[in-house]
Amino acid sequence: MKNKPLVFLLDVDGVMTNGQFIYSNKGKIQKIFGPDDHDGLSILSEFIEIRFITGDRKGFDISKKRIVDDMNFKLNLVSTVKRLDWIKKNYSLKRVIYMGDGILDYLVMDKVFYSISPANGHEFAKKSADYITRCNGGERAVAEASLHIMKKFFKKFDQIKGIKNKSFSGSWKL
Amino acid sequence: MKNKPLVFLLDVDGVMTNGQFIYSNKGKIQKIFGPDDHDGLSILSEFIEIRFITGDRKGFDISKKRIVDDMNFKLNLVSTVKRLDWIKKNYSLKRVIYMGDGILDYLVMDKVFYSISPANGHEFAKKSADYITRCNGGERAVAEASLHIMKKFFKKFDQIKGIKNKSFSGSWKL
Amino acid sequence: MKNKPLVFLLDVDGVMTNGQFIYSNKGKIQKIFGPDDHDGLSILSEFIEIRFITGDRKGFDISKKRIVDDMNFKLNLVSTVKRLDWIKKNYSLKRVIYMGDGILDYLVMDKVFYSISPANGHEFAKKSADYITRCNGGERAVAEASLHIMKKFFKKFDQIKGIKNKSFSGSWKL
Amino acid sequence: MKNKPLVFLLDVDGVMTNGQFIYSNKGKIQKIFGPDDHDGLSILSEFIEIRFITGDRKGFDISKKRIVDDMNFKLNLVSTVKRLDWIKKNYSLKRVIYMGDGILDYLVMDKVFYSISPANGHEFAKKSADYITRCNGGERAVAEASLHIMKKFFKKFDQIKGIKNKSFSGSWKL
Repeated sequence: MKNKPLVFLLDVDGVMTNGQFIYSNKGKIQKIFGPDDHDGLSILSEFIEIRFITGDRKGFDISKKRIVDDMNFKLNLVSTVKRLDWIKKNYSLKRVIYMGDGILDYLVMDKVFYSISPANGHEFAKKSADYITRCNGGERAVAEASLHIMKKFFKKFDQIKGIKNKSFSGSWKL
Repeated sequence: MKNKPLVFLLDVDGVMTNGQFIYSNKGKIQKIFGPDDHDGLSILSEFIEIRFITGDRKGFDISKKRIVDDMNFKLNLVSTVKRLDWIKKNYSLKRVIYMGDGILDYLVMDKVFYSISPANGHEFAKKSADYITRCNGGERAVAEASLHIMKKFFKKFDQIKGIKNKSFSGSWKL
Repeated sequence: MKNKPLVFLLDVDGVMTNGQFIYSNKGKIQKIFGPDDHDGLSILSEFIEIRFITGDRKGFDISKKRIVDDMNFKLNLVSTVKRLDWIKKNYSLKRVIYMGDGILDYLVMDKVFYSISPANGHEFAKKSADYITRCNGGERAVAEASLHIMKKFFKKFDQIKGIKNKSFSGSWKL
Repeated sequence: MKNKPLVFLLDVDGVMTNGQFIYSNKGKIQKIFGPDDHDGLSILSEFIEIRFITGDRKGFDISKKRIVDDMNFKLNLVSTVKRLDWIKKNYSLKRVIYMGDGILDYLVMDKVFYSISPANGHEFAKKSADYITRCNGGERAVAEASLHIMKKFFKKFDQIKGIKNKSFSGSWKL
């Protein structure tokens, strides 16, 4: 592999969240995030750019609070059907790893270098995915994807628990 | 099939939501909706009228926010036991597809043209259903039902992932 | 059976709810109730008194909102360890059906006429139960228990879906 | 075993909670706790000190409300990577039982006397654990761990349901 992937681009809902939208009589007011995904991405962020993309306009402020304010990653609002064009303008498709779960994410997944779906993604996403995590969205799917990417593309893990290796562990930003 | 179905009528709680009612000391204040159902219905809405019905008076404002304000579909408040009469007044039973999950939805499901239950519907609903989705309510059951209806009654999908077909994909309103 | 059971006494958390306590920085603020339990109890209430008991003082107002204000059943605050004495003062143990899920509910379940645990109850509750529902708490466990009680003690259902029988269906209060 | 364990130190998120973080546009506002864990710890607290530790700064006030205000246990804010040093300063590692679920909890679990992971902990935590509960975090994992500790280290349960034994049951503080 001459050109390593340059960016890990993730959808938010169903990938970082469990896909649920909590509604009150004020509308969409809450989303549910899960454990270890932030830590997994922090470890991975030494090796590749991490960036988020979402099509959820009404819930954008909620996603922004988690992704931008609390985790310090970039987040763009781009609908699934316009996402492929957006990616082309900003990156070389051949160097993009994309993680998505929804009914239309295959439109992107089929075109990028490498694609990942959580275990509970839509069947279309799973059929298009190069890798399907064992974990569900919001239940460590992104932590698992992060370790998978480090192992597959950056050869940093000789074994599944190489993370314990002292020569390596000092370099995380946590 | 001479007369195609004219309307896809869906119960809200347990079909579009996961069936849960979140209570505070103010009463029923939140419900939980899920991924892809809005997209699935948007795709299907080119072929058949989509309409919602609910028996939940205390949570009506929450359902209205999601179904009417955010998704732009009609929603009526009609209890399960009065629902069959309401349908008869507004539609020909022979042209109605109904999706419900509750203990009394069989009262409607046994009488309409075609009925659907989510995987986690009440056993009475599942026994009366013509089709049981693999997905649970609030976990893509409606997205799955939408694709099932397109395939079964409108012959638009030659294969499960026919949605990628270019001659077709241009016509969605998303 | 000469003396039919006179009361169906139910714990709230883990039986009518999924057992979860939602906390904010204000404390315990929300609980999660589920589908069909209200309908199941309404049908059963023609045959036997329905009553609730809870040990949750901090979440009492939330439970009261659902059980008393929205469903019109009685609810008493009695800890699990004092519950058996409370029952003895108010009922004949031999005519009580009790449904509980917690680590200490066996203290009651071992002594009453008939006891029920949801599928996801604590192992002690399940070991003491005369009947374990297939459904989890907050996922129709009480609806299932209600139909089970009607069938077992009141012989109203000749078959699982006897609920459709016209000679019977007219008598529900829903 | 000459020296019995002196403290049961528990992580909060994913152990006492189901690991979920509920976000609104105000940020992390809610966490979800579950049944029986408080009762299990109350029973165990006669035999060993119970103490909590968390790395979640933004959700600290929520955890504090449950752990400190409602359950009356101590809670310290210490990140996972600094946790081992904190423990060494306060306890002898050889007398610590630790329960954690996260991607980095193995850093502690590998060094203490005895370690426990919930069934749905990260694979690293489960690989490092001496005992993996059958229950998930927020679904009685801590209640199960509490009974396991009593049985294994304090010989108080001759049988799984020894909790019914009258000579013993009088001594709980509930």
